[in-house]
Amino acid sequence: MQSASENTVLIGKKPPMNYVLAVVTQFNNGAKNVKIRARGNAISRAVDVAEITRNRFVTDAKVSRIDIASEELSNEDGTRSKVSSIEIILGR
Amino acid sequence: MQSASENTVLIGKKPPMNYVLAVVTQFNNGAKNVKIRARGNAISRAVDVAEITRNRFVTDAKVSRIDIASEELSNEDGTRSKVSSIEIILGR
Repeated sequence: MQSASENTVLIGKKPPMNYVLAVVTQFNNGAKNVKIRARGNAISRAVDVAEITRNRFVTDAKVSRIDIASEELSNEDGTRSKVSSIEIILGR
Repeated sequence: MQSASENTVLIGKKPPMNYVLAVVTQFNNGAKNVKIRARGNAISRAVDVAEITRNRFVTDAKVSRIDIASEELSNEDGTRSKVSSIEIILGR
C-alpha cells in the first residue's frame, strides 16, 4: 500500500516531461491514483502534465478530481502573500 | 436570461484584477454561474481570478466545476500545436 505523499507529484520549474515521467512511473508501479500539485505559475504546467499523461501515456487515466485553493506564504522580509494552488487527481 | 457566452470571462495577459472585476460584475448583474476560461500560461491566472473572486468579493460563490482539456492551435507557419486549457465554473 502506498501513502498519499508517495502518490504525489509536486510540479516545479523543470520541463513538463520530467513530471510526466514521474506520474507515469507511479502508475506503472501500481498506483491507482496520482495527485499532481502545483502553486503559482507552475499551475499551467500541472495542467500540461495531466493532459500529456492521459492523452499520450496512460490513456485509461481520467481526471477524478480538481481542487483549487489559496495558500499563504511567508516572504523573506517577514510579510505574507497569498498564492493560488491546484491539485489534480488522475485515476485509472 | 443570459446565454452561456455572456457568462464567460476569457483570461488573457492583463493583471488578474481586471478579470476579477469582470467576474464580479457578472454576478452583480444577476448571473448564477460564471465561467472562467484560459489557455496555456494564462491558466495560473484563471485560478488566481477564481480564488480572489470567491475569497474577497463574492464570498458565497463556490467552485461548481473545473474541467481541463487540450486544444489544437494552428501556428503561423501552418503547423499545429497542442495547448492545455481550463474552465472553472463559479456558482452562487
